[in-house]
Parts: sequence; C-alpha cells; structure tokens
Amino acid sequence: MQYQFSDRISALKPSLIREILKNSSDPNVIAFSAGNPSPDAFPTAEIQSISAEILSTNPVGALQYSVTEGYPALREACKALVTERYQINMENQELLITSGAQQGVDLICKVLLNEGDTVICENPSFIGSLNCFRSYHCNLVGVPMQPDGIDLAQLEQTIKEKPHAKLLYLIPNFQNPTGYTTSREKRVEILRIAKQYNLFILEDNPYGDLRYSGEAIESLKSMDTEGRVLYVGSFSKILSPGMRIGFTVAPSEIIAKMTVGKQCADVHSNILSQMICAEWMRRYDINAHIEKIRALYSKKLALILDAMKSEFHPDVTYNQPEGGLFLWCTLPDGANMLDFCAEGARRMVTVVPGSAFYVDDSAPCQSFRVNFSNPREADIAAGIERLGQLTKEFI
Amino acid sequence: MQYQFSDRISALKPSLIREILKNSSDPNVIAFSAGNPSPDAFPTAEIQSISAEILSTNPVGALQYSVTEGYPALREACKALVTERYQINMENQELLITSGAQQGVDLICKVLLNEGDTVICENPSFIGSLNCFRSYHCNLVGVPMQPDGIDLAQLEQTIKEKPHAKLLYLIPNFQNPTGYTTSREKRVEILRIAKQYNLFILEDNPYGDLRYSGEAIESLKSMDTEGRVLYVGSFSKILSPGMRIGFTVAPSEIIAKMTVGKQCADVHSNILSQMICAEWMRRYDINAHIEKIRALYSKKLALILDAMKSEFHPDVTYNQPEGGLFLWCTLPDGANMLDFCAEGARRMVTVVPGSAFYVDDSAPCQSFRVNFSNPREADIAAGIERLGQLTKEFI
Repeated sequence: MQYQFSDRISALKPSLIREILKNSSDPNVIAFSAGNPSPDAFPTAEIQSISAEILSTNPVGALQYSVTEGYPALREACKALVTERYQINMENQELLITSGAQQGVDLICKVLLNEGDTVICENPSFIGSLNCFRSYHCNLVGVPMQPDGIDLAQLEQTIKEKPHAKLLYLIPNFQNPTGYTTSREKRVEILRIAKQYNLFILEDNPYGDLRYSGEAIESLKSMDTEGRVLYVGSFSKILSPGMRIGFTVAPSEIIAKMTVGKQCADVHSNILSQMICAEWMRRYDINAHIEKIRALYSKKLALILDAMKSEFHPDVTYNQPEGGLFLWCTLPDGANMLDFCAEGARRMVTVVPGSAFYVDDSAPCQSFRVNFSNPREADIAAGIERLGQLTKEFI
Repeated sequence: MQYQFSDRISALKPSLIREILKNSSDPNVIAFSAGNPSPDAFPTAEIQSISAEILSTNPVGALQYSVTEGYPALREACKALVTERYQINMENQELLITSGAQQGVDLICKVLLNEGDTVICENPSFIGSLNCFRSYHCNLVGVPMQPDGIDLAQLEQTIKEKPHAKLLYLIPNFQNPTGYTTSREKRVEILRIAKQYNLFILEDNPYGDLRYSGEAIESLKSMDTEGRVLYVGSFSKILSPGMRIGFTVAPSEIIAKMTVGKQCADVHSNILSQMICAEWMRRYDINAHIEKIRALYSKKLALILDAMKSEFHPDVTYNQPEGGLFLWCTLPDGANMLDFCAEGARRMVTVVPGSAFYVDDSAPCQSFRVNFSNPREADIAAGIERLGQLTKEFI
C-alpha cells in the first residue's frame, strides 16, 4: 500500500543533523550537542521520598484519570511562582498545566493559527518550536537575531510585508541556540510593535531562571497590559525534563480553548508527576534549588569559556552568555561548518550545526551550538581540546 | 483585546452535557457517567515497589529527557503483548508509545488528514475521538451503529457519497458508548470495503481485554495484510489511566511520521511511568491481572443488570454487553431524555445523555450511557434504584 501523508507533516523534512549526530548517545562521545540539563541538577532524593509518600497515601489519586486543566495544587503553586519570580499579574489570566512546554507551544498553535497564517520567529531559534509551527502548516518567517534580541527594523519590515502575521515567537532569556538575551529596551519596543500590528507574542522562557551574571530583566508577560502575551514555562530545566511538566499563562479565554485542545491531544498530563512536582514545591525552597543549579552551571560556563579561549583558533568567535545552557560559536568564512561538525562527531565530540536552527536550513551558516550544562566538568576540557584541534585544522 | 480563534478550535463547541454533569465529581453523587476504571483494579502495591526501585536504582534515567519513540523496554513488551494477545503480525509494522491512546488518535490525524478530508465513524462513538477529528477540521460523517457493529450498507453508501473519505474510525470491542461488539463477519466485510475504497481503518481497542462472556474475536489489525489498519491500544483500563500510556501499531512508514509529529507535540511521554509500566509487565503476569479485573467488572455487570431488571420501567430497553465498561439504555419515545439526565443529576445520580456521542448532537436521541466499572458495588443498587424511580416518573 502506498501512503499519502498530510500536507502539514510532509512540510517537516527529516533533518540533516540527525545523520551527523546519530552517535551522540554513545557514552564515549563528549556531547556538547544535547539540550539536556545536568543530572546533578535533579533533586533525586527529594523526588524519591515524595513519590513514595504519594503512592502510599494517595495511590488512587496518582493513578486514576484527572482533570485536563492540571492538578489543582500544582496550578496554584505555578501561579504563585510566576507572580513571585516573573511579576506576572494573574488578573484575567489563567494557567494550564501542559505535557512539557512543547505542548504549550503546540496548543497555542492549535487554538490561534489557521493554515497559511504567518508566524514570525527569531532566526535562528529553537528547532522544536519551529517544527511545531511547520506542523500547523503555517507560513514561518525568520527575523535576524542580534546579541540584544531580534532586529526591530527587520521585524517591522517583515510585519508590513506579511499582513497576515498573527504570532511572534520569542525566547527572550538566554535564547536557544544563541544564548542571547533580549534587552529591556527591545522588550518595550517589541510590545509596542505587537500592539501596533495586532500580533500575539509567544514568550517561551525555559531558561529564565538560569542567570549567572548581569541583571534580571522583566518578562514580556509582566509588561503586557492587554492580554497579548502568552507565556510558556517549564520544569524541565529546574526539576526534571523526563516528567514532561510545563505550563502556559494566558488570558482565561485562550486557556479555556487550549484546555479543549488538550482534551483532544492527551486528556491530561501524567498525574503522578504533577503531584510530585506540586509537593516538591510545597516542601522545598525552589529559589534555593535554583541557586544551586545556577552555581553548578555558572562554574561549567566559566570552565568552557576558559577552555575555548586557550584551545580554539583565535578566528572562532563566540558570545559570553549571561545564562542558559548554550554558546553560539562562529567559524570564519571559508571554513566548512557542516564538515567541521561531522568530523567532530567522527572524533567523538558533538556540537549542533547552526543551520539546523534557521527557518531555511539550507542558507549559508558558519555557526554551531555548544551546550555546557550536560557534559561533566572533566569532559569539558577534554572535549574542547578536541574541538580546538579541529578549529585549527579547518581554518 | 478581542480574540479570534482558529477555525479548527471554533468547530469544537462546549458540550451541553458539561452543564448536566457538573456535579458528577461530588462524592455524594453516584456517578454512572464516568469512563473511569475501578480503583480496585489498580495494582497499587506493585506500582509502589517498582516506582521506588526505579527511582533508587536509575533516577537519572527516570528524570532525564528520553527518546520520542518510547522507552525501549516498554516498546518491546508492547510488541510482545499485541503479538500474543491480538495475533498482530509485527512484520513491516512499528509501535510508538503515546501519551494515552488519545494521543495515538491525535497523531494519526496529524500525519494522515488534511483539513476537509472525510472521517467516517460509528454513530454514536467516543466523544474524545470525535472531538479530535473535529479539531483537525475534517468532515466527520457518522454511520449508524448496530448491535453487531457498523451498518455496512450505510457505510458503503456513505463512502460512495464522500469520495474524499480517508479514514474509518471503529471501536470493535465493547464500543463506547454502546457496549456493542463488531461481529467477525462484519470485521471481514469492513476490511473488504476499506480495501475496495482505499480507506485507512483506525482500530481503537481500549476495552478489548475486558471480555466477560462470549468468545474473543480477532482484531481487525490481525486480519490486515496490507498495512491499512492502524491499531491504538491503552494501559488506561488495565493498569492506570493517570499514567497516560498508550501505543499505536502501524506500518513503519506511518509510525516514523507519527514520531516526527510527537516530537512537535510533547517530545516524549512521561518516562518514569513508561519505566514503571515496562517493569510491571516484566515482573508480573499481565494475563492473570486481566483475569482479576474481568472478575471484578463481570460481577458489577451482573449486579447492575439485575438491579435494572427489577428497578427500571419495563419500557426502557438496554443491551447485555459481553465486556467493556458501558451499557446503552433507551427510553421510549415521548420520554424527554435530556430532562431525565438533568433530573438524575439533581437527585445525585448521573448518566451521560446519549446525544453527546453523536456526530450531530442536536439530532433526536432517547438513549443514555451507563458506566458500571467505576461505582462501588454498594452504590450500584442504590443508584439504579434512584434511576429506576426516575424512569417510572418520566415514562
């Protein structure tokens, strides 16, 4: 039998980086290619004891069907969290628990976008979200990313050229893949532009807690007085990604529609993990836990920057991110970036070709993404030494 | 700010039954309206000990990101299960772990259906799936359900009238909401018709293990030699619905596309619960466990049928299902079914108005759905007594 697939899924081509990265799960590989948090950041013992307690005191609650909106205690804890940590005013807003932040992005597309609508994103941006937009068969348009955030002149130009632009997708803090942070000034301007041209803003903030230097900047959502910003948060980087717990804060009317969409998608998120997450927040100090993770990653960032400084060919440029999990490195013109990444994989050290993060992944690109949260400290030096050798061979 | 939602989500109207059933979670209500398995069917102690062991021996595996396809040991266990219990031949087929069976239905839509494609379903059928089809903005057409399965003449007529029919959605065993089972003869004919008109069949089988009488009938998937049947299974009715673990068996080419779709939807399903499920299947005898559940529900079914026989007005008709969780009761013409259900809810006994399960929920309907797995044995008699009183008042 010949299969004919939907237009939306046919728009999702298998990525060229899969081939390059296929050995990255080999334990002998030093993987700077992952987006994984460090296992040392998981509060393992705490989760063990909370899980045992829930399964012994309330096993039926943890195993039976639950409500689509999310476990009530977890929703309340998340509302308190976004109010406290991100100054988000919950008036007229609601919060939906999702199966990872990814599902938040998916449900926002489901309820707001028709096929053919235009979504504007930073270019480069997070592959998982870009593919999600593609899977809704919408018109995805990238606007160049700069070290202080999206290029505003280009953004406005793009909106004027695309009158059906509906949604602007941004990762304002320590962006994936660049590690860049959008300045306060640009955030204010972005809100102004979104208002002028009547765009929704999808603010994706998985890394916001992971600041190692510089000063915190208000979330777009906290500056939004119109219900134009949809805020997507995640526990993947501060508690556990395997649990798949994220949340979306948006106007109540939109959350109501997303809840209907979620009912069709997976009925509700895994309830045991929602209960574990809620109880963990009740029992422990999330702020203290985040400080521990910050210390862990901030040390790894210093290590990798030191190693890159001494090992990389001086013509390789890279940023010094104020937080997050990623560095963005650029080879000088003339060096073949894809070959560089492929040869790295053969020598058991993996980074992600930057082209993978672009709306048009066939456009010329000299950059690659380096993750520093996942490799062990001892592997960082060894891995960067191997990569450094490679920069000297390729430049 | 005024919100304009996508066409697909606007097609999903809030259901009239929500209002009727809003008090069904009140512990004083006797709820025949749920689709919940009995808490007595959960292997609570087994899950407790397995969970503790996994979190102590492999916490990082249980908390870190995992692969989209599903936890390898669980995929293997599920393949063995469908081969043994449903005689499904896995040649050229693959198995994807999903976040509940609901996500299997959702991903099948995502990869196969364009907006406007026609989906044919049994009428009435499971609301969750019908709403999922609606959320892909396709043309949903119902074909009357009969006690031995879908009306074949009407099915063929419908296909001829709808040349863009792409997918036929069926629940062949102990259907939701009717409890009807599709006969072997009809299954053979359905496959023939699907082949003749080049339709996919989505075989949804959440209740297949719960047979209390009669003889097991081969799954459509086991009779399929062409890769035309997509089989969706679930652990919700035999292990735990709160875990949200289901699976889809389909041709490898389709599973590959569904995996791409799942990556955009939720990256992967909760990994701790996948590991618990795999280890539970490795350690315990799933067949023996299913026998225990069958005994539990078969007793409840006998109880409720007895009670209905003695309490219901003799003009109420209902079936004697061979398995599953539901009975389908019909009031005689002249009795107002919606008022009957609403008055039941006021008297603290809830059933679901049958109209909710129809493609056109405003069409005349005299039926209501009764669940017998969830209420406690003691409540069954009391609840049916109350409902029986009501039948006498309404007829």
